[in-house]
Amino acid sequence: MLSKEQNKRFTEVGPGTSMGELLRRYWMPFTTVKQLHDHPTRAITLLGEHLVAFRDRSGHYGLIQEFCPHRNTNLLWGIVEPEGLRCPYHGWMFDTQGNCLEQPAEHPDSTFKDRITVQSYPVEELGGMLYAWMGPEPRPMVPHWDNYVRDDVVRDIGWAVLPCNWLQIMENSLDPVHTEHLHRYFTNYVLERLGSDDPTARSFWRSQADVRRHKKIGFDIFEHGIVKRRVLQGTDEDNAMWKYGHCVVFPNMLQFGQIRVPMDDTHTMYWWYNVHPKRAGEPDQRPEEIPVYKVPMPGVDEEGLPIWELVDNNSGQDNYAWTSQGPVTPRWTEHLGESDKGIILYRRLLREQMGIVDDGGDPMNTFRDAARNVSIHVPTETDDPNFEGLTGRRVGEQIAAGAVSTGASGKYSPINQQRAREAGFAVPTAGPDAEKRVRAWGYIHPREP
Amino acid sequence: MLSKEQNKRFTEVGPGTSMGELLRRYWMPFTTVKQLHDHPTRAITLLGEHLVAFRDRSGHYGLIQEFCPHRNTNLLWGIVEPEGLRCPYHGWMFDTQGNCLEQPAEHPDSTFKDRITVQSYPVEELGGMLYAWMGPEPRPMVPHWDNYVRDDVVRDIGWAVLPCNWLQIMENSLDPVHTEHLHRYFTNYVLERLGSDDPTARSFWRSQADVRRHKKIGFDIFEHGIVKRRVLQGTDEDNAMWKYGHCVVFPNMLQFGQIRVPMDDTHTMYWWYNVHPKRAGEPDQRPEEIPVYKVPMPGVDEEGLPIWELVDNNSGQDNYAWTSQGPVTPRWTEHLGESDKGIILYRRLLREQMGIVDDGGDPMNTFRDAARNVSIHVPTETDDPNFEGLTGRRVGEQIAAGAVSTGASGKYSPINQQRAREAGFAVPTAGPDAEKRVRAWGYIHPREP
Amino acid sequence: MLSKEQNKRFTEVGPGTSMGELLRRYWMPFTTVKQLHDHPTRAITLLGEHLVAFRDRSGHYGLIQEFCPHRNTNLLWGIVEPEGLRCPYHGWMFDTQGNCLEQPAEHPDSTFKDRITVQSYPVEELGGMLYAWMGPEPRPMVPHWDNYVRDDVVRDIGWAVLPCNWLQIMENSLDPVHTEHLHRYFTNYVLERLGSDDPTARSFWRSQADVRRHKKIGFDIFEHGIVKRRVLQGTDEDNAMWKYGHCVVFPNMLQFGQIRVPMDDTHTMYWWYNVHPKRAGEPDQRPEEIPVYKVPMPGVDEEGLPIWELVDNNSGQDNYAWTSQGPVTPRWTEHLGESDKGIILYRRLLREQMGIVDDGGDPMNTFRDAARNVSIHVPTETDDPNFEGLTGRRVGEQIAAGAVSTGASGKYSPINQQRAREAGFAVPTAGPDAEKRVRAWGYIHPREP
Repeated sequence: MLSKEQNKRFTEVGPGTSMGELLRRYWMPFTTVKQLHDHPTRAITLLGEHLVAFRDRSGHYGLIQEFCPHRNTNLLWGIVEPEGLRCPYHGWMFDTQGNCLEQPAEHPDSTFKDRITVQSYPVEELGGMLYAWMGPEPRPMVPHWDNYVRDDVVRDIGWAVLPCNWLQIMENSLDPVHTEHLHRYFTNYVLERLGSDDPTARSFWRSQADVRRHKKIGFDIFEHGIVKRRVLQGTDEDNAMWKYGHCVVFPNMLQFGQIRVPMDDTHTMYWWYNVHPKRAGEPDQRPEEIPVYKVPMPGVDEEGLPIWELVDNNSGQDNYAWTSQGPVTPRWTEHLGESDKGIILYRRLLREQMGIVDDGGDPMNTFRDAARNVSIHVPTETDDPNFEGLTGRRVGEQIAAGAVSTGASGKYSPINQQRAREAGFAVPTAGPDAEKRVRAWGYIHPREP
Repeated sequence: MLSKEQNKRFTEVGPGTSMGELLRRYWMPFTTVKQLHDHPTRAITLLGEHLVAFRDRSGHYGLIQEFCPHRNTNLLWGIVEPEGLRCPYHGWMFDTQGNCLEQPAEHPDSTFKDRITVQSYPVEELGGMLYAWMGPEPRPMVPHWDNYVRDDVVRDIGWAVLPCNWLQIMENSLDPVHTEHLHRYFTNYVLERLGSDDPTARSFWRSQADVRRHKKIGFDIFEHGIVKRRVLQGTDEDNAMWKYGHCVVFPNMLQFGQIRVPMDDTHTMYWWYNVHPKRAGEPDQRPEEIPVYKVPMPGVDEEGLPIWELVDNNSGQDNYAWTSQGPVTPRWTEHLGESDKGIILYRRLLREQMGIVDDGGDPMNTFRDAARNVSIHVPTETDDPNFEGLTGRRVGEQIAAGAVSTGASGKYSPINQQRAREAGFAVPTAGPDAEKRVRAWGYIHPREP
Repeated sequence: MLSKEQNKRFTEVGPGTSMGELLRRYWMPFTTVKQLHDHPTRAITLLGEHLVAFRDRSGHYGLIQEFCPHRNTNLLWGIVEPEGLRCPYHGWMFDTQGNCLEQPAEHPDSTFKDRITVQSYPVEELGGMLYAWMGPEPRPMVPHWDNYVRDDVVRDIGWAVLPCNWLQIMENSLDPVHTEHLHRYFTNYVLERLGSDDPTARSFWRSQADVRRHKKIGFDIFEHGIVKRRVLQGTDEDNAMWKYGHCVVFPNMLQFGQIRVPMDDTHTMYWWYNVHPKRAGEPDQRPEEIPVYKVPMPGVDEEGLPIWELVDNNSGQDNYAWTSQGPVTPRWTEHLGESDKGIILYRRLLREQMGIVDDGGDPMNTFRDAARNVSIHVPTETDDPNFEGLTGRRVGEQIAAGAVSTGASGKYSPINQQRAREAGFAVPTAGPDAEKRVRAWGYIHPREP
């Protein structure tokens, strides 16, 4: 339980807030290479600031303030030029460093443009994603987590805008036991509600879940964050789930594939960065070829009833848990138990790291040494060739046999869907259609049509 | 005319308000048996509180707070169990009394769950509806108005969420003369606007209305509320409309079939509880078989113009009058005349009954004696076999001849529609489609698309 | 750059504000004759007031307060009568002067109705538009700008509700250089984004734009407002664009065809009043025959990306520039240059005219002398038979050859479209469909689905 004041301190992300300052010490992914190749401008909200991302005709990436400083028009409609972004209204042009290069309607000798700058942030590319640096200089390096640099995989990237604060998403990752309930027991209930509990009728992403109890959970702070461990019914401490565990990479990642980027205090851009083993003969992907897909959000229909087909899968279930807590969950009404000790540990770590930043230091996961930033591997349960996962089946063998992952946002991943189709499974089509039926969460409560 | 302060006192319904306390002395219908049979959980807003209704697998009905006290997830997605409702996130389970029965991830010996309760309200069933008690104990009985207990009828139940305070709906029921204008004269105008004033082209719910003037109106407080009387042009005080009159059952019902349940200060759940004479050979309905239908709300289209087909009928016309006054009508701008004396009387009665509750007493229509709560009949004009109604035709004879009621929400009642179809009438189909074209009332005023 | 306080003074339009008082010294068009012929009531928001316009069965036009003073129902559903508008609820009837003529449910001898009035505003018709007077008496005359009274033209009238303050729209008209960028250079970029840069594939409203630089701009206050002048590359001061110029008619018109009527502080009703040369044999239009069309607004799609086909034309481009500045642009963040001197001049004129009204005087363009209000012509560049416009082609010759104007909202004008069709051009169909894909401007920033 946090006081209202503590809750504010943990959840506000704008400039000048304690958490906002800590978060500004990390490179934040904000769009993908493919997205800016397909559409050269994009509206970005990041840590409470409204920005426009662009790719100029020379291939430079920029991230600058949304409004033209001349007359406040929105630069999302900006014209991309060889060396910058031009406002459509009067042609003022800005480069990626925020300099005003041209003001075509002013006198050629005018020095007015030299006195104009726009807010801009450095951008770097890694593994098909674009990262922004919003903190002080000297900036550190973009971390080279191994999944972003290895070449034995193909990738796709899912995204969703979640209408809630980032912290309630992160807390979910410090909470191993929710998998037993939300992803296993509840899955069976959802299948019942959908009227599809015939186990022979399953498509690749729906299957009756065996529910194994958690016998024990444990947490350790390590170099890059927190490792969480579990012993499930039928396993022991020799199992990879306890020995290696599952890591939360500080401050805002689950392993390396799920990244929670605070847009503002009540919205989070979620990225599912997926790597799939590259198959024989499969060509390399160029960054601009990495597919991007939107992950549907759960919700209620116009009668206020849950749309069950949106929570028949891992990401839908998590989305429900995160966002149904409200825009910023009121932690002064929560009741944490012994099983929530990972959350308490994570909050302690956040508090400690905010303190380090307050004192002018570099927080955890600041990389300034190139030699140590080549391909960072964090030990994880999947390193164990015998790793069985929640299903109790060997993951390695399954994948070798043609199975695909249905965890995370796997239901909607185009590469997953393609591989499942090739293996003869039915693939889901309902998700995006179902999302069209969704009314806003607020619709649960009465409001005008 | 009420002051702003008085208006607040009459319209605020939350806990601790004067009106909210009076309303908490009445059982409030909040959903139907059929609704919870079809979908075992449902989001309910009642007297300013956000709740979840559920039916567990043993058939018990519960009404508890919306948010799980553990981590604030919404229990609308809760899993129904033999003895309660289980949160999908970590499996906490609550019974209908609000006890926390299980916390699966806590140690089996933990007493944590014994210190957790959720807000819960007693629920009772009558006539296919479910009622909640939100007041102090000892609670009284659910009133057995005869229409809820008689067995010579079949029933269907309409509902709508009205975006306005309950009081402006009730005031309409103390106002006999509006029928002459809103339901008769205006009906003819609506038919003209629809371009369908050919009297031979009418379907069962549309007919050219004879407009008869009100010569006299009268009001009396009686045991159960207020009876209102009228003498129409062509009738006298021997007519049932004056002798018996039409009753408002205190505090929130018109006769027994129209119930206005305050959701919050600016929304009202409206129930049309209809009884239709059971026909020979027609089987009894089980409570979970009573059809439920949504009544379309009037509104404007995207150009801001009225959608006329939504106000060609009684409930559409009333909905217009109630909701177009705004979320809470500013009674300091009203100008009441002699013809509004019923409204003034009703406000006086409300004030008096709020006083009784303030003094710790039982207000009007509190039933604590089972012998007097078997089947309560309130004399009403339809008791007179010669009752003619506003149309000037004998209602009894009409029904015997196969006619159906088009009053209240009769246009949309499935039993009405079925009977009309059997009698060879055309039945309306446009209503629900027309409702899809409705923009919010607020759209009348400029706002972003 | 204006202070926040100054910005407020320039942008607030409600009763009692400085700008609101100045604007109340002008007749404001609020609907068209045809609109009230087709639908006899219409909701109107004007200078911060919510009103209902109506046409009674005798052909009188009224503009009265939205809410019935009896019980606050909305008179948009009012019944039009031979001498007024009747409330559907209880039949109170009001005439165009705001008198209450009938209260059918009150005693025939009651004087209650004589004590009831509603707010009403005088209405006059000119050239198919209806104008309201919201200022003090004695009211001046509706100005007879020549386009509203000449009989050698046919007319059509476009409209849009813009979600922004009127002033940022007017400032655009004092800004000649934006045409070079927003309407020429940006047009070519939009065609590129649409993937349709093949010049042979153009339909009448899309063409590759030649971009000619502004060599010089100038502004003069004259009798009716401000004339703006320009010298484009390849022209000199003998050109009509400099000699005659282009006029802004004070306070809220561009020439006579584009009128910006403040609805409230953050919404503007835009009217495009178009005159097209009448062709041989073409019949006169009666006022109720003048076509009215809705002009689509630009916006972003559900992924937050610009919908380019909505900005491939003059009005779409301007709409973007006006509304993307936000509901009320924060002028304390603007950076005006030498090229913005027209805007500065216009603000000075507004300030001066607000002062005249404060002192009780008649501001600019107050007409009280009928002899001087027969058909007011303001010299303008199109008076020159050799006028070439931005395209560098003689406008007169083009029109004689069958071309149609694509400036202003010409893309959507039905008369333009008809004439283009007759001349063998393809006509646009995408606009209105594209508008359906538009999400609100606010959608650029994160918000719930």
